[in-house]
Amino acid sequence: MPALPSEIIKLKRDGKELSKNQIKEFIDSYVSGSVADYQMSAFLMAVYFNGMSKRETFSLTEAMLHSGLVIDLSFLNGSKIDKHSTGGVGDKTSLIIGPIVAAAGVFVPMVSGRGLGHTGGTLDKLESIPGFSTQLSVEQFKDQLSRLGVCFIGQTKEICPSDKKMYALRDVTGTVECVPLICASIMSKKLAEGIDGLVLDVKVGSGAFMKTIKEARILAKALSAIAKGAKKKISVLITDMNQPLGKAIGNSLEVEECFDILKNRGPKDLRDLSIELSAQMIFLGGKAKNLGAARNVAEEILISGKALRLFEEVVSAQGGKLPLPRAQSTYAIVSKKNGFISGFQTESVGLASLLLGAGRKKSDDKIDPTAGVILHYKIGDAVKKGNALATLHYNGDKPIKEVEQMLLDSIEIRLQKPKTPRLILEKVGR
Amino acid sequence: MPALPSEIIKLKRDGKELSKNQIKEFIDSYVSGSVADYQMSAFLMAVYFNGMSKRETFSLTEAMLHSGLVIDLSFLNGSKIDKHSTGGVGDKTSLIIGPIVAAAGVFVPMVSGRGLGHTGGTLDKLESIPGFSTQLSVEQFKDQLSRLGVCFIGQTKEICPSDKKMYALRDVTGTVECVPLICASIMSKKLAEGIDGLVLDVKVGSGAFMKTIKEARILAKALSAIAKGAKKKISVLITDMNQPLGKAIGNSLEVEECFDILKNRGPKDLRDLSIELSAQMIFLGGKAKNLGAARNVAEEILISGKALRLFEEVVSAQGGKLPLPRAQSTYAIVSKKNGFISGFQTESVGLASLLLGAGRKKSDDKIDPTAGVILHYKIGDAVKKGNALATLHYNGDKPIKEVEQMLLDSIEIRLQKPKTPRLILEKVGR
Repeated sequence: MPALPSEIIKLKRDGKELSKNQIKEFIDSYVSGSVADYQMSAFLMAVYFNGMSKRETFSLTEAMLHSGLVIDLSFLNGSKIDKHSTGGVGDKTSLIIGPIVAAAGVFVPMVSGRGLGHTGGTLDKLESIPGFSTQLSVEQFKDQLSRLGVCFIGQTKEICPSDKKMYALRDVTGTVECVPLICASIMSKKLAEGIDGLVLDVKVGSGAFMKTIKEARILAKALSAIAKGAKKKISVLITDMNQPLGKAIGNSLEVEECFDILKNRGPKDLRDLSIELSAQMIFLGGKAKNLGAARNVAEEILISGKALRLFEEVVSAQGGKLPLPRAQSTYAIVSKKNGFISGFQTESVGLASLLLGAGRKKSDDKIDPTAGVILHYKIGDAVKKGNALATLHYNGDKPIKEVEQMLLDSIEIRLQKPKTPRLILEKVGR
Repeated sequence: MPALPSEIIKLKRDGKELSKNQIKEFIDSYVSGSVADYQMSAFLMAVYFNGMSKRETFSLTEAMLHSGLVIDLSFLNGSKIDKHSTGGVGDKTSLIIGPIVAAAGVFVPMVSGRGLGHTGGTLDKLESIPGFSTQLSVEQFKDQLSRLGVCFIGQTKEICPSDKKMYALRDVTGTVECVPLICASIMSKKLAEGIDGLVLDVKVGSGAFMKTIKEARILAKALSAIAKGAKKKISVLITDMNQPLGKAIGNSLEVEECFDILKNRGPKDLRDLSIELSAQMIFLGGKAKNLGAARNVAEEILISGKALRLFEEVVSAQGGKLPLPRAQSTYAIVSKKNGFISGFQTESVGLASLLLGAGRKKSDDKIDPTAGVILHYKIGDAVKKGNALATLHYNGDKPIKEVEQMLLDSIEIRLQKPKTPRLILEKVGR
């Protein structure tokens, strides 16, 4: 006889370990509606307090995964490897990595999300390209993967319906910041893509959800454990998010910066991280005998222009038409002092961009694809009074003075030259 | 600017002390619908884990109290004192106490609840009297109080709507067993009655929600603190619920036992507790200079038949018509051994009565007013093989064999005579 939902909640509340079947039944009943939202939220809060064992987290991931369609990509003759980032400001690597890795012969099935709060989302960035569609059917997705090796889509209704429902609930019930729930949410969606392996980019710092390396390590380990349990290859990088990645924040501005990288220009940090993540994926995908060789493959593909040409094909295949649109107005923010850029309050930089229209406060807010911020300096750069620190891109009437003050407060300038921060902090073993 | 509901949940989750205004706003928003059930249940679970300070519990009680109508009984020339029991099996003292205390000149505004699970409810008991109505308007309630000094009603829609909504939610989200929530639920309803003082009967034992005296003390202290904060007189008795109170369990059977007590017959434990609770109320109501004198007043009123006549007037005023109905079938359960009654699994006795139709598993179940169990012995009584231990009263087709086994398993018989248990365990100071 199946247990009452309230009994399952009480078991979790009382610190008992739930069985695989209990978790599966609870999740299935939630999707079918016989467990109510108010029961799920009480359960999630109990999980927040009591945590979940490795076994429970894996059972939750599996239950969420099997609440919907698991895409079967076994017809593709080769490895299927995806990348997931825990989110940051200016984090646009997916657009660069996808074509590099696919050009190396590894299939890249990318199911991405939208931005919320200070962080951007891959779908919003791609959709700033006029006509670009991320709402493909599973058949279209499979078809493009087999032709081009890479395809970018949004989460469909069929994939992990439990995650969609649970995530919306967590957002309004104070149960977002909880490692087992974060892990199950990420991994259930990624496993549903039909992948063989996953490279995770866990961001840590002032622009990330994880503020300390300790927290990032806990998350990285928990994610790795699930991947291993699911018999998937996994590689985790813990990377710096104490300053925006690259210099562009805002959707079409970030796509433009990706084109720069693909054209062998653009900010070094974004290029370095893209190469490293690509190398990890190429190595997991079996297209290089070690990471060093994989890095060389990625570099060659980038330098040769192959990745640029593939990305242009993908844009065209998904309906996108260049050139990118531009905002009508720009405004330069000028430094009030001499010194070195020594730090960013990265989350505030993301929120400044949001205020210009580039992001969402609530999940149903409309965004302006052309709005955003271009930073002109990275940590360690020298700056003089009167130099432009950043350029705002926006349309219509926006709170420019407020955004200016936010950015001036967010960019630290000191007389002493700081140490250049390390970009890749740790690699958590395969 | 009012805080987002999710921010209030997070504060509680993170162990912060909420302000009076934050709690008031959250409760008011819940009643108006802008805080959703799923947010309230997450909040309640966070309270379950982090508790509430004395100040928070008081703020919660006040917020729940003022979510609805607070009855104004200031027009009554005298003290208004009520009694509340935390619930047990065979606990029917309200019907005896109400008339005794009112006959002593203290007003008794009794707003009662219905039974759920193994415990009975005063409303169900009264409604087993044919025609008896507990659904009076606030005006009818006031009118009867001024004429007879006592009136029994159910919680109206106007009183503590937040409690009604929250209680239903707690029941299905594993958040019932939480002292601050229990306290706020009890006290908000009692304060809404317009009382000057309250006598609390906190039950402890195998038939009560509180299984240990330690838990009972914690609850007693928390309830006292709220009463003091609200500037109400309070007196708390912690009393034994390791056997049913009296011998009758089931609605009309219990009313009959109340008539027995009012006619100077009936089980000693029920009489003793009724006198003690009445004395506490008479003393709090200022109608005796000390508890000893108050006990004498209660005894005299009971012996003289004044309380019986007043109860008959109340029954008639609220539409009730005697005689009480009786079930069509009875079945005697016979002892299989000689010895002394040494204990009860009291909750099981309550559930056995429920299976005969006397109680509810779910809040919308129908009950049979005449069904129930009459026990023939109390702890310490000698019993012989072949003696009737209990008589079942029921209608139609009931699982009699199952109930018989339950009761045989619930009534412990040993060769050694046990100590007679104390009825009143502790008095928690005024």
